[in-house]
Parts: sequence; C-alpha cells; structure tokens
Amino acid sequence: MSARMFGAPVQRTEDERLLTGRGAYLDDLGADAYAAVFVRSPHAHARVRDVDVTDALDVDGLIAVYTHEDLTGPMAEPLPLLLPHPCIVDGRTPHALAAGYVHHVGAPVAMVVARDRYLAEDAAERIAVDYEVLAPVVGIEAAVAAEHVVHAGMSDNVAAHLVQEVGDARAAIAAAPHRLELDLDIERSACTPMEGRGVYARWDEAGGSLRLYSSTQTASGVRAAVAAKLGLDVGRVEVVVPDVGGGFGVKIMHPWPEEVMVPWAARRLGHGVKWTEDRREHFIAAAHERGQRHTVRAGFDDEGRLLGLDVEILHDNGAYLPYGVIVPIVTSTQLLGPYKPGAYRVEFRSLYTTTVIVTPYRGAGRPQGVFAMERTMDAIADRLGRDRAEVREVNLIRPDEMPYDQGLLFQDGRPLVYDSGDYPRTLRMVKELIGWEGFAAERERARAEGRRIGIGLACYVEGTGPGPYEGGHVQVGTDGRVRVATGLTSQGQGHHTILAQIVADELGVAMSDVEVTTGDTRRMPYSVGTFASRGAVMSGSAVALAARKVREKALRVAADALEADPGDLEIAGGRVHVRGVPGAGMDLGTVAVLSNPLRYAFDEASRAATQFARPADHAAPPVPEGDAPGLEGTDFHSPLRSTFANGAHAVVVETDPETAEITILRYCVVHDCGRLVNPLIVEGQIHGGVAQGVAGALYERMAYDADGQLLNASFMDFLVPYASEIPPIRIAHLETPSPLNPLGVKGAGEAGVIPGAAVIASAIEDAEGFPVRSMPISPSDLFGLRRRFAAGEIPPLRRAERARGRRANETGEPDV
Amino acid sequence: MSARMFGAPVQRTEDERLLTGRGAYLDDLGADAYAAVFVRSPHAHARVRDVDVTDALDVDGLIAVYTHEDLTGPMAEPLPLLLPHPCIVDGRTPHALAAGYVHHVGAPVAMVVARDRYLAEDAAERIAVDYEVLAPVVGIEAAVAAEHVVHAGMSDNVAAHLVQEVGDARAAIAAAPHRLELDLDIERSACTPMEGRGVYARWDEAGGSLRLYSSTQTASGVRAAVAAKLGLDVGRVEVVVPDVGGGFGVKIMHPWPEEVMVPWAARRLGHGVKWTEDRREHFIAAAHERGQRHTVRAGFDDEGRLLGLDVEILHDNGAYLPYGVIVPIVTSTQLLGPYKPGAYRVEFRSLYTTTVIVTPYRGAGRPQGVFAMERTMDAIADRLGRDRAEVREVNLIRPDEMPYDQGLLFQDGRPLVYDSGDYPRTLRMVKELIGWEGFAAERERARAEGRRIGIGLACYVEGTGPGPYEGGHVQVGTDGRVRVATGLTSQGQGHHTILAQIVADELGVAMSDVEVTTGDTRRMPYSVGTFASRGAVMSGSAVALAARKVREKALRVAADALEADPGDLEIAGGRVHVRGVPGAGMDLGTVAVLSNPLRYAFDEASRAATQFARPADHAAPPVPEGDAPGLEGTDFHSPLRSTFANGAHAVVVETDPETAEITILRYCVVHDCGRLVNPLIVEGQIHGGVAQGVAGALYERMAYDADGQLLNASFMDFLVPYASEIPPIRIAHLETPSPLNPLGVKGAGEAGVIPGAAVIASAIEDAEGFPVRSMPISPSDLFGLRRRFAAGEIPPLRRAERARGRRANETGEPDV
Repeated sequence: MSARMFGAPVQRTEDERLLTGRGAYLDDLGADAYAAVFVRSPHAHARVRDVDVTDALDVDGLIAVYTHEDLTGPMAEPLPLLLPHPCIVDGRTPHALAAGYVHHVGAPVAMVVARDRYLAEDAAERIAVDYEVLAPVVGIEAAVAAEHVVHAGMSDNVAAHLVQEVGDARAAIAAAPHRLELDLDIERSACTPMEGRGVYARWDEAGGSLRLYSSTQTASGVRAAVAAKLGLDVGRVEVVVPDVGGGFGVKIMHPWPEEVMVPWAARRLGHGVKWTEDRREHFIAAAHERGQRHTVRAGFDDEGRLLGLDVEILHDNGAYLPYGVIVPIVTSTQLLGPYKPGAYRVEFRSLYTTTVIVTPYRGAGRPQGVFAMERTMDAIADRLGRDRAEVREVNLIRPDEMPYDQGLLFQDGRPLVYDSGDYPRTLRMVKELIGWEGFAAERERARAEGRRIGIGLACYVEGTGPGPYEGGHVQVGTDGRVRVATGLTSQGQGHHTILAQIVADELGVAMSDVEVTTGDTRRMPYSVGTFASRGAVMSGSAVALAARKVREKALRVAADALEADPGDLEIAGGRVHVRGVPGAGMDLGTVAVLSNPLRYAFDEASRAATQFARPADHAAPPVPEGDAPGLEGTDFHSPLRSTFANGAHAVVVETDPETAEITILRYCVVHDCGRLVNPLIVEGQIHGGVAQGVAGALYERMAYDADGQLLNASFMDFLVPYASEIPPIRIAHLETPSPLNPLGVKGAGEAGVIPGAAVIASAIEDAEGFPVRSMPISPSDLFGLRRRFAAGEIPPLRRAERARGRRANETGEPDV
Repeated sequence: MSARMFGAPVQRTEDERLLTGRGAYLDDLGADAYAAVFVRSPHAHARVRDVDVTDALDVDGLIAVYTHEDLTGPMAEPLPLLLPHPCIVDGRTPHALAAGYVHHVGAPVAMVVARDRYLAEDAAERIAVDYEVLAPVVGIEAAVAAEHVVHAGMSDNVAAHLVQEVGDARAAIAAAPHRLELDLDIERSACTPMEGRGVYARWDEAGGSLRLYSSTQTASGVRAAVAAKLGLDVGRVEVVVPDVGGGFGVKIMHPWPEEVMVPWAARRLGHGVKWTEDRREHFIAAAHERGQRHTVRAGFDDEGRLLGLDVEILHDNGAYLPYGVIVPIVTSTQLLGPYKPGAYRVEFRSLYTTTVIVTPYRGAGRPQGVFAMERTMDAIADRLGRDRAEVREVNLIRPDEMPYDQGLLFQDGRPLVYDSGDYPRTLRMVKELIGWEGFAAERERARAEGRRIGIGLACYVEGTGPGPYEGGHVQVGTDGRVRVATGLTSQGQGHHTILAQIVADELGVAMSDVEVTTGDTRRMPYSVGTFASRGAVMSGSAVALAARKVREKALRVAADALEADPGDLEIAGGRVHVRGVPGAGMDLGTVAVLSNPLRYAFDEASRAATQFARPADHAAPPVPEGDAPGLEGTDFHSPLRSTFANGAHAVVVETDPETAEITILRYCVVHDCGRLVNPLIVEGQIHGGVAQGVAGALYERMAYDADGQLLNASFMDFLVPYASEIPPIRIAHLETPSPLNPLGVKGAGEAGVIPGAAVIASAIEDAEGFPVRSMPISPSDLFGLRRRFAAGEIPPLRRAERARGRRANETGEPDV
C-alpha cells in the first residue's frame, strides 16, 4: 500500500509553478483584448449633473465610452443583494455605473474601452464629470447622528438591524453580583491582496455564450450574477478563475460593477475586453472591513462566571449593502467564542456611510467579536483580581457538553451548535506554550530592568465550512491519471495539494498522478465559493466522497474483468491488485478503458473459433441500470451545519517606555481544526493569519478625512508589515475531529488572524497597566494613551494597582 | 396539458436553419487554419520506393510536408481495428501514411500543410513518389483465386471467416422434397453523401488539449481513437461535430488516416489545420460497400416451407479491415428476415482486394441479405408454381411466436432474438397497398398492349438500435429553457426535432423551449455513435429517461417550495401547476434557480422580524444525500439486445421492350418501426432510403478496371439518380412497440434502402420472365440478359412458361 498522504506535511505542489513565475494571473490573459478603464468619483457624496465625453472621443484607439445612460434592462438596475438576509432594513446596492449619484470616492461613473490601457487612461482623463457635491457621512458617529443621510429616501442610515437573544440578558446582568460595561472599537482595514481585482471577458457569437475570467473567490456566484445581469441562461456563461494572487475575502463579493460591465461590453463589442484593477482603485473602489463599535455589558459572579451578556454593535457598512451585513452577523454570533455567556442578547445596526463598501475580510467579523469578548474576560479578571486564564476557564464549554447549542442562528441560517472541541485543553496548551504561569516573575524581572513587558491571551471559536454544499468530480483517465475538479476557487491556499492528498489516499494512487482543477464552471458548474474557511471541509469532503464512488466502481469493473471478488481487490500505486496473488491485477487506466463499453463486446473465449457459441451472460445490459459509462464520479458534500474550529493565542509584547514602540517577543498558537490534512499548509495558513492579525493590531488602518477621502490609499501610506515585523510563531495542534464531514476536518484558513487584536491588546494592557479599548494601536496611539493615563483620563488596571501594592480604588470600571 | 408531441407530424426544426444556408459544416469552420492536402497513390498496389519532396519545398506558403518517416510511436503503427471480432483471421489496417506499400488507389502517401488550400495543392503536385507497381487484386474472383495476395505475409486474401449454424442445414437440405441453388451478386456502391469527410483540429498548448472538429458519425469513437494515437488521455480531446451533410455509414469509420494526421499536425505546428475532402478523394479514398456474392442452397417442402438453408458469402472487403467485416456479419444474420429458415448454416469469407476499403453503407449488408433471401423465396415460388406472397406467408414467423430466437449471434455479440412484430400483417398490408391480387390481370392487359410490367415483393427484418449504450443529458436553465445533449451525431436525420418532441412531452414544456446538442463530447462525453438506426431508439430513450429524472426532481423541488405534495403537481407549458388551484405554481426556470442552493437559506417567514426564531426544519442538508444541485439529469439507455423493425416493399415496374429502360410505376412500403415519434420524419427517412435503394438497384455501381482504377470516380460518371428517377412512394405504417426501450420505438433510418435491389429484381423478373440474379441492373444489363435469354443461356421463369400455357421444362433450376 502507498504511504498515507492525509496528514503528511507534503510540500505544496503549486509552489514550483507559482514561485518560478509560471502562474497565469488575470492580467496574464487576454493580450489581444481591449482595455477597460473606469472614470471614478473624486467625491464621497455627490449628484452627477453631467458626463461630458466629447474630448475623449478624439483619442485615437478609443473603442467606446459608456455611462449609465447606455445601460438597459437588468444592467440599468442596481446590482443584486448578495445576502438577502431578513435583518436588512433598507438594502441599497450600487449600479454598474453611477445612476445620478455617487456615494463614495471611487464609485465608477463611466467606462472607457480602448485598444490598450494607455489609450484608455488617456481617454478617461478627458472625460469631464460635473458633480454637485453633497454632505459626506464618514464614520460610525456621523452615521448614527444621521444629520445627513447617505441614501435618498431614507430617514436615517440604518442598513440592517438584528437582535438575537437567548434568555433575558438584561435582567440577568441586573441581578448579577458584578457588572461592567465596555466600549470597544476596531477600525477599518482591508484585505489588500497582492493581486487586485480583474475581469476579462470574451463573447462567442456563434455559441451565444460568454467566457469570463475573473480574479474572484466564487466562480459560480459570478456566473449566476453575470448571467442574470446580461439576461443569459447560466448555462451560457463559463467562468474560469485563473491563478489568483490572494483574496482574503474581498474577492468573494460579486458581481462587482466592473464584473458586469466588462462582459457586457465584450458582448456588445464582439471583442475581448479586460480590466485590471490598479492599487489605488483597490483601496478606494474594492472593499474594506473591520470598522465596528461594540458596547458590552456583562454580569458575572465572584468567580468571573458570566451570568448575562448584552452586546450592542454599530457597524460601518460603507456606501452600499450588497454583502457587508454578514460581518456584524458573524460578530454577533461568533463573539461568544468558547464561552457560555449565560443569558445573551446581541443587537447590531449596520450603518451606511459615504465610504467604500464593506465585505468580509479574513476572519470576517470574528476579530472584532473576539476583541470584544476577550477584552471583557480580561476586564472581569481585573475587576475580580483573578488570573485572566482562570476567569476564561470557568466560562469554557466543557468537552462533555459537546455538541453545544448556543441557541442562536448562525451566519448560514442554521443553528449555532458547536460540533466538537476541547476548549479547556486548548487553553491549557497555550498557557504551557507561552509560559503563562511563570510570566509574573518574568514581567517583574523586566520591570526591574526598566523594561515593560506584558502577556496576553485570547481564545476563539470559528464556525468554518458552512454549506450549502460543494461538489467534487473525480475521473480516472484512460492514461491512469486522476483528474479532480471542485468548483471553489484558489487564491494560493494550497487546495491543489490537499485535494490531491485526499484523493490519492482514497483512490490508492500517487499524488503526482492527481491533477486538480478549481474554479472552472466548465469542469464543475455547481459550487458556492472560497470563503468561511470552506476549502478543506467542503471541497475536501466532496472530492473524498467522489473518489470513494470511483474507487468502488474501479473495484467492481476490475473484479468483473479479473473474475475476482471486489473484496479480494485493493488499489495501490494506481493499480488494482488481487490480494495474495502477486502480479495479478490491472492499471487504473485499463479499468477506465473497460469502464466505457464504447463498442460491442464479444466473448474473448470464442475469439479463436470461427464457429462461436453464444455466451451465456447476456442477461445484463452493457451499462447496468443506475450505472454510467466511464470511471468517474461526482458527489456533493452538503453538511447539516458548520463545523467549529477553535484555538487560543498567547503573546508576550514589550513596549518601549520612551518611544512607545511595540515589539512582539513571543507568539504562541494552539490550533484545533480537527484532523489535519497537511500540517505544513495549516501552519502556513496560521503564519499568514497571524501576520495579518499583527498587521491589523499594530499597523493597518484606513485613514479617512472628514470629507470621506482616504488619505492612505497606497502602499506608501498604508502600512502592510514586512516579514521583519512578524514574530516567530510557535504552533501546537490539537485535533478534535468534526463529526459533520467524512474527513473529520475543520476550516483553518482564517483562524490565525482572528485573535490578533484581542491578544495583543491584552498583552499591551498587561505591559502598560491601563486598558486598551481600541485597535489598531500604533506607537503614537500608545503614546497618546500614556499621556491620557498620566493625566488621569484613563483609569489604571486594578491588577496593575494591586501589583504596585495599592488597594483597588474607585477609578476602575464601576459596577453598572 | 400541452398537446402530445410524440407521434405528431412535426416539421423538422433543423430545416429553417439548414435550408436557408445557415448551417455550419466542417469547411465553414477554421477560416484561419492551415490547409492540408494528401498525396495519394495512383496505383492499386505498389511499393513506395521513395518520396521526393524537394520541389515542393520551393512553394511559398508551404508549412510542412510529412511522410511515414515523420511519424513515431502510436502514429507510426497501423490504425486500430474498429471491430475486433473473433471471426477475423488476419486483420490488416492502414497506416496513417503509407508505410512502404500502398494497397489501393487513393491511399495517402504524404501530407502537405500550407497556408491555404491552393498552395497546398500546388506543393502536393510537386512531390514525386517513386513506385514499384505490384499486381492488383480486383474483385471477388481474383481475391478467391489468390494468384496474387494483397498483403505481404499472407498466403491468401481471407481477412475474416465465420460460420454460424443452427441445426444441420446441409442434411436438412439433402433430405428435403425440393432443393435449389442460386448464385446471387450485388456490386459495390458507396454512400456518396453531399458533404465528404473533413477534419479541423486546434491544439491548445496551455491546456494541453485538442479540439477536433470532424464530419463524422461518431464523436466519441473519434475522440478515443485520436487520443490513443496522439498519446493523450481521452479527457484531453474534445470532439465537436458540426453540421454534417450526410453520412449514410461512411462516416462511422474512424479513425481515418486524415483524422489522425490533421490533429497530429495541428499539435506539432501549434496551429489550426484543416482538411476538406474533395469528391474524387471521397470516391477513391473513403469507403465503399455492397460488393458481395452469395451462394444459396435451400431445401423446402411442397408448400414452399424452408427446411434448410445454407448460404456461403464471399465479401469484397477492399484493402484493409478496420471495419468492413461488419457487413457480412450483418448479412449472414439478417438475411433470414421475417422467415424461419429451418436448419440454417451461414458461412462467409471476407476477402482483401486492392480497392478502397469497405465500411457499412445504409442498410449495411442487409440489402444483400434481403436480395439473397427474397430471390430464394421467388425461386421457390417459381419452382412450385405457387404465388410468391403465399410462399413467403408459410415461412413467416407468427406474432404468437414473439419474441423469436433465431439462434444466432447478432452483430452486437448478443443473441439474435426478434422482440416484436406482426410479419403476416405487414405482408398483407403491402399486398393490399400495391394491389397484389389484381396484378395478374393488369400485367396481362399491359402485355396485350405490348407493354411489359411486373410486380415485385420483398420483406425484411432489420435489427436496429444496438447497444452498448447512449446517454442523454437534460438540463432546465434558469431561463426555463431546456438543454438536451446526447452524444451521437446528426447527419441531417432530424434528431434535434424528435429528441425535442420526446423531451417536450416528458417534461411538459413547449418544443420551442428545447434545444438539442448532438455530437459534442464537451456536452456528453460518453457515446457510441450514429449508425445501425440507433438515433431514436438509443438517444431517444436516453433523453426520455434523463427527462424523467429531471421531471421528478422539478416536482420535488417545486413541491417543497409550494408546500404541496408532488403528486398534486403537474408540469405543462414550462410551468409547474398545482392541480385544482388555478394560478398556483411556478415556472421551471424558477424551479431551476431553487434547485441550486447557491447561498445560505433563511426562513422567509422571519424576514420581517429583527428577532427571528430558528426554523425547525434544519434536520436536512441543503443538498440531500444522493441528490445534486441543479435541475438536470443524465441517464443512459443500455438495452439488453437490439430491437427488430420490419417491413415489406412492393413495386410495379415497366421495362421497355426495345430500349430495356426500366421505369418504376408504383412503389409501396409497409413499415413497422414500433411507435412513431414523428411520422413526417420516418416517411422522410423512407423516401430517402427508397431513393437510395432504387439508386442501388438501377443506377449506382463502382466501375473498377482490372488494374484497380475506379473509372467513374466523379458525379459525371457515377449515376446518382435525380428526383425524376425516384417514383412516388406510398407508405403505410404498422406499429408493434418494442418492449426493449421505454418509448417502444425501433430504428427507421436505414429501412427504406434495404429491400430495394430485391423488390426491383423481383418485379423485373416478373416483367421479363427470366431470373435476375445480379444487381444493380442498368438498361444495358437488361438488354444483355434479354440477349442471353433469347440465346437460351438463361432459363425462363417457370411461371412465365406456365403463363404462356407451356409446362415447365428442365432448363429451370435443377433440384440439387
């Protein structure tokens, strides 16, 4: 038998190609396509009085200029809501091109198509748009105040509103021995993948069909949306996703205005059209996330056990609501983490602002939720003078309580039921890994040396791999090679490697004989997409199920040909073997040939005879009922519910007493994503996630001015950390298999980023002795906090006071 | 409910497009492809000493010249046997390009590729091939004599040899009261479709895949064969069959040398390459059929009942045996027609000759078999002085004997068991239609006017719709339109119409909402092909089965959405209706959208509420086990055995006493192909078949000289009849449903041609009074027969003598 690939730390098969520059990204395609460029709004809020294209028409090589006036039918209507959730109060979505108004800087007003990009940019610059500037609405406070409204016809800026409640949280808090209230903020950031968005479309007039390439995270979603916009049957749209240089969530969103305009123009012009986003466009015209304010009220007992939790969330949704509402939905349901909250009430309002839209960014609302919950845990510990880990421990759901029903409805519309996990063990492991117990002494030693160090801790639970489904198709070729297709797309996560590992094991072939295709609707038309850490759970399970079907058929066909019992056969090394009969068997390629009775079958035994007898076995048709020709199988994984991964991060930071520089000394991760398909890849995902978590905690933020201009819309100003800013990361795995899928796996793609802000805030608090309630935090921010702390505007942590031998005073958070 | 389309005489939906010149045939594709031309042998048999391409290299625009020397691996090996039947003694197949020898005029020796066809032809003319001419072997006699052998290493020219025997036929004949022996010949003819062969290939370097367009009758067969030759997995070859201007059998054959050379060159050159056959090439380098000699010995009783039948067949197979062996296999098994032969022995030898290869031509060996059997019936009647119809009647299988097992193995390797039919009724109907009973008087009246008229009769049984399988895929689009795909190809038969009729009924949609694709391996990779009157039986059944799956799913999904019982729903006019609730229901397009749970589902009832309850019905996954997203279904029809259609033709001819011109006065057809999907199309098929039958009986033949040169290789010399030569045809249908498929249908595509030679020979005999034992028969032939008859070299028919009041003399066929 072949060595088992599942669980092995296999090097990514994608890497040789991608790292040697042989990837084919969107902009590598369509060399002969026309180039599209968009004229975008320079204002956050304005009425478009006129678009004058006269000057542009002089540009030699101009093919077309389009404005909203040119669009008819579904193209002239607003883009669809991506998530038509019941909580939506007034769901505004953008038009493909501005229809009278613009609601954020960067909104597309006109589209220019020219022979090449240079000409298109030249022509775009000559288009004069006459704007009547309207009042901007920037930030949550302005949105709540509603002095100005973003959308005409609305009396406020509330896009969506949801309350979920389990028990009577407010009563429970009121009756609790202890109470606290915290205001917690996370600022806006963004995915900033290496490759921005891009769309390339070709129209096949003869076939009446569209081929669309998009740098997207969801081929099938783009397909359905573009088909609807163009009035085409879904079957007439092929979406092929080439190599994608990162997504992190921003490419889940669809259809983008550009994503419908480019194919629409390609069809209209009868010529390939391509648009490749530039970096500034990505900053101002793609999507952001994270901007959220949380008011937490908690009631708890003397041990720190939560009795009631009441959370109100205000979410900055940006200008339109195609999809951003998913973010506070996730926050409000995932905030609970591994804890039992007692009675729980959560309410959110998603607010329109005149800034670019919000869509999920890796972690998708969870970093905010974990920040809120873990700040709360730290505050409880501080209030009670208890160890922070201890307070968490008393609140943890125990393994014997699994599956645990939080009583809420999750983002997928299904019950929020944790399927498995050993949260106390996760916590114990991370404490051990970081050296929690001995840290007080370490901190004191450092302090004695004039250094400030602090330790932080954060736990999380992550609902991963939601449905509705994902499909797998596995086919053994007549050459014995195995082609695997799944519909979700890859942005560099290593799907091709892990899916090959899974199929290699299930079928008994070498990984090198497995070829994986993702995100190509020609190969797998039914799919949902790559988000919510779905890859391994959904497509991994689907290809495993499909491979099992193929294996079963291979054994059946081979058994028939070898006149053996299928139970006596096994497949290894791409060959069906007869157990106990060395040399007997056949290659899978031969089985594939035999699986398709392309021609009449004649009795081999009578081949030599001129007078041949009639074979006796003609009672069965060549393709038995319910069977099909070919050695291939399709299956779908459609789980009852999401599966819940969990983990804990711990970090030790040092803050410079003078410069307020924040340095991460140790970063430890305990991670439980069920069974590990490939530890190398999971660890890679964790590394990347932690890097983005650190980035979000310390560096990255969107700096809007009051007019809604993004002041740092470039990589010169938006501080993506270098590798040098990212600490070494120690990782330990725990594997509590999921009972919800055939592989026992859980999602791992987003986890690393989730506790970043929470754990670093926790450590900075510990180092500084005063609470940190807003992230990200830069040295300037910390410097400012220190000043306010020194001025008495911020109370000290009680434990910091205690550590200094003073009794707690009344400047801490009062019981509310 | 919609009117039922099955059985309705619906106009062909293909016709508007095809008859207004909007078809896209092979040569309409690939305008930018390089053109390929083949240098062909001018000799029937020669050794290729040298191919000198020097002069050709000077042609500006020449891209490449290839000879056998350039081919390696599988390309250098002989092409495969298409039918590796046990009866094959020595199966010789051609090389893609001549490998040292040529065995017929027209064999490809070199391939020239140039920028366009003109240049390619110019270059081809400059290629000098040095041949050492070898002895030709032309015709069956030369092949049997084996003075020269076609293939080196063989001691004779026997390609295949098969004996099948049920009982002891020779003993039965010897013991019979009466015996006769007949030598019966049919000459070679050919399909001569309007469009010849053609191949256009493009190689996709990035995808490592081939797109192949071929004017073929079997997309999947071409795909498998070309993949094998090019060393590609089948999955890397897409075969798309465009509109095809007729096939009639010649395009079943694959791979043709040109069909592997063109894609091989396209891959090698990285450029599209196209070859379009010209008419002369089609005559000398495609394929012929029909050439067969039959020696029949029969023993019978006083009523004409067969007691034993012994048939020896010599078949002219042409130069190679990829596929021609199917012809005598069919003849030897289908010769029995609707009759019980008593003990039966049939033996054939398929012989190599230095002429172009034989492949099945519409009827595929049956016209020869029916000619042999029906000549025998007429001879028995004549011998006994009995009515020709009466002798047939006593030999017919009765309906109460169905299913009737002839005890042989059919062409598909499965038992020759007739499934259903009412042969006596078929015969009675055709006698009535032609006016059999009153004809003696009519003939006498004509004779009195100095005119010679005769009546003829011929019955046949046709095994149709053999397996192994054919597939159907039916998908309801989100636009409510229904896409149907089946793998077999169309050459103008009206498949798109009848498949749409079938699916429209099964699904409850309008025919105009059904789009059918045939012969595209991208849409249906598994298929067998269009031959053996398989279209309606195999693909019709397959799409019906697939449509039933889709209907069932549509009802299930709609029932779920409408909260109704599936049993209360019906589909009509493309809409699911709730019985008894007018207006309730939904369009199939909506059902298609609902069938794909692309996104999370939220409880509609809670949409208005901010505090929403958890729906109770989350016990099932979005895609239930065993289900799949989408409103589509695939199924395969794989019958146990072929289904047997039957029919009888009767004809009245007039022969000019002086010029020997033969005129058909009346042509009547009774045809039973089970349930009729579309009488218009079936009658169109019969009309076309009868036209080809008349052509084969009276006009078309291949005139080879002794050197193996085809003397009439053009439409100036090969007499395809005009419409003016084809008589009006009266048709009556009988419908005995087949129990072997869900529609009860039998094949109808070839039937019209099958009894052509037999029935016309029968009528000419009747008019002339002497036997006709060889077809076709031209006025010159008849003139010659009359001379020989007058010279006493041919005996008169006994009934002719009787009619003249003379008693039978001993010059008739002796009892043997």
